[in-house]
Amino acid sequence: MLGRPRRLAILAEGRFTPLDAKTAVGVLRYRPEEVAAVLDTTRAGHTAMECVGVGGPTPVVGTVAEAAALGADTLMIGVAPQGGRLPAAWRAKVLDALGRGWDVLAGLHDFLADDPEFVAAARAHGATLRDARRPPDHTPIAARRAATVDARVVLTVGSDCNVGKMTAALELTAALHARGVRTAFVATGQTGIFCADQGVAVDAVRADFVAGFTEEMVVAAAAGAEVVVVEGQGSLHHPAYSGVTLGLLHGACPSALVLCHEAGRETVRGPGGRRDPGDPVIPPLAELVRIYEQAAAWIHPTKVVAVALNTQALDPPAAREAVTRAARETGLPACDPVRDGATVLAGAVMAVERTRSGHAPHA
Amino acid sequence: MLGRPRRLAILAEGRFTPLDAKTAVGVLRYRPEEVAAVLDTTRAGHTAMECVGVGGPTPVVGTVAEAAALGADTLMIGVAPQGGRLPAAWRAKVLDALGRGWDVLAGLHDFLADDPEFVAAARAHGATLRDARRPPDHTPIAARRAATVDARVVLTVGSDCNVGKMTAALELTAALHARGVRTAFVATGQTGIFCADQGVAVDAVRADFVAGFTEEMVVAAAAGAEVVVVEGQGSLHHPAYSGVTLGLLHGACPSALVLCHEAGRETVRGPGGRRDPGDPVIPPLAELVRIYEQAAAWIHPTKVVAVALNTQALDPPAAREAVTRAARETGLPACDPVRDGATVLAGAVMAVERTRSGHAPHA
Repeated sequence: MLGRPRRLAILAEGRFTPLDAKTAVGVLRYRPEEVAAVLDTTRAGHTAMECVGVGGPTPVVGTVAEAAALGADTLMIGVAPQGGRLPAAWRAKVLDALGRGWDVLAGLHDFLADDPEFVAAARAHGATLRDARRPPDHTPIAARRAATVDARVVLTVGSDCNVGKMTAALELTAALHARGVRTAFVATGQTGIFCADQGVAVDAVRADFVAGFTEEMVVAAAAGAEVVVVEGQGSLHHPAYSGVTLGLLHGACPSALVLCHEAGRETVRGPGGRRDPGDPVIPPLAELVRIYEQAAAWIHPTKVVAVALNTQALDPPAAREAVTRAARETGLPACDPVRDGATVLAGAVMAVERTRSGHAPHA
Repeated sequence: MLGRPRRLAILAEGRFTPLDAKTAVGVLRYRPEEVAAVLDTTRAGHTAMECVGVGGPTPVVGTVAEAAALGADTLMIGVAPQGGRLPAAWRAKVLDALGRGWDVLAGLHDFLADDPEFVAAARAHGATLRDARRPPDHTPIAARRAATVDARVVLTVGSDCNVGKMTAALELTAALHARGVRTAFVATGQTGIFCADQGVAVDAVRADFVAGFTEEMVVAAAAGAEVVVVEGQGSLHHPAYSGVTLGLLHGACPSALVLCHEAGRETVRGPGGRRDPGDPVIPPLAELVRIYEQAAAWIHPTKVVAVALNTQALDPPAAREAVTRAARETGLPACDPVRDGATVLAGAVMAVERTRSGHAPHA
């Protein structure tokens, strides 16, 4: 991404938790060798593993100077708040980093490069501002072109935000690589883009073009791959983001879906993971399977082929039981791709390839 | 909109047809007193009525100078091509208008006010560039707030783009006014905005905020109205725009839907209304009713209460027969709101108000 090895300081001030610091957690899990430190004054002295369960001994520190002493040379904003805006208290840290000539990476809806103070500081110190959510300039209109590619296209879909759609997609990609299958990962959100070094944050493009950018990425990725794994976003049951989810589903024209869910989550959560009494109830998994297949079939028929269950809140026996129950409820292969690896998902995807065409009529 | 009476010249060069010049047709139908002329060199000498079936004797002329002689003082771009970009050949006409000090209104995805040459010309001649699709700066996240308003909320949904969702919404608004019902119209697309002088083009906002802007407009409109009529966009069966449609449906939390369809249309059309052999087939009306009710119920339950059938391509007896058939197929009241007025739609909406709550569980 930067044309040189980078050492990241990930800014997650006051919010370095699994739920709030989704981008930090994703990068710690999939690019750990690049992370020098995490910045959070409220957790300084702890390790990433202690705070978020990944990242091993990566230290949490309080200042940019401490991160610099640990070898950091790039600042990444490690949180993506709903609404996307940079908390005011973090500006000083961004300016500190820019003053050291560090590049700054962010996936916020408010672009760093639209901020005159940041732009001036970057220019003065030879630093670059990189906004992962900045959409490309063109305006692609989807027309079911992704249904015509030779590769198998797999999309992860979910019961809610932040249940593990990106993680399932990345683990599935790794498991397919391990089987020797040429596999491309299509990143559609800021964390996926930071992990993959490319992609389009489809939640930040103009709404008319969500399906079009998805289609364009799938068609491009399919040229060099047997399987294209597309990172899903949101949920058809999310009051704010369902439109993005449907645009992705109709732009990708997947030949298989992997349904992602967090064991024990019963309602769609509000901004920042908050729970309110009126939150929409998540339907049973078997009904979610039916709903995603029906909604996909409005444009292109597909099947849910497996369930990826996030069991991070459970102990191992309870996790095993939850996975067994999900498989029984849906009649589909199931696993927790973080706990178990994604061999089960890879097998389900490759079985689809052998037994049906992506263009078969919807049963 | 302009703070003074305006006389529009509507630019529809080479494309002043009912299908291509949707914005021109909408404004000619709902703001006819403001239109001095239509610009289309290929149809100069004809009337609007001859070209698009509305607008009566409004003349079609070839040059901005001729429109000026007819009293025009404002240029409106009367076409919204898929992808939204201004055809290069039209730039000279925009510059001619700006050179006369005319304001220029457009609903394109490419903003006039981002074009340095237009900005310079407008500044030099005291003219204003108005982009109806420019989204507001804030970033509203929907959370089913529209489900809590006291007003009845009605959304028009459709089998495809350009079947009459805006027209049905405006005719329904007029029919409710005629019954003495305090009714607010919420514009969600560029033509609706030109007709209503306010609104947000939800297809042009960042995808995360489609439902949020819809919710915000519905909540604001409900403060002063018994019924809020929301202009629908796209279709759940459109390969490119289905996400916008679902975002609107989940942001508006309507208590009633009006299903719009063009009699005889069997497939969803490609860019510019083009038909291809592979175009998605539009399901039967009764299945569309079921699909829209199911998709709405993921967030908030609702019912389709009437069918608005666009019969513009049919003669009067065939139109009557088509309306009768639509009513029989769906078991719902049906009409062509342009041919018949929207009394039937208004009656269906007010009947819902008396018999069920917008918060009742989905049957």
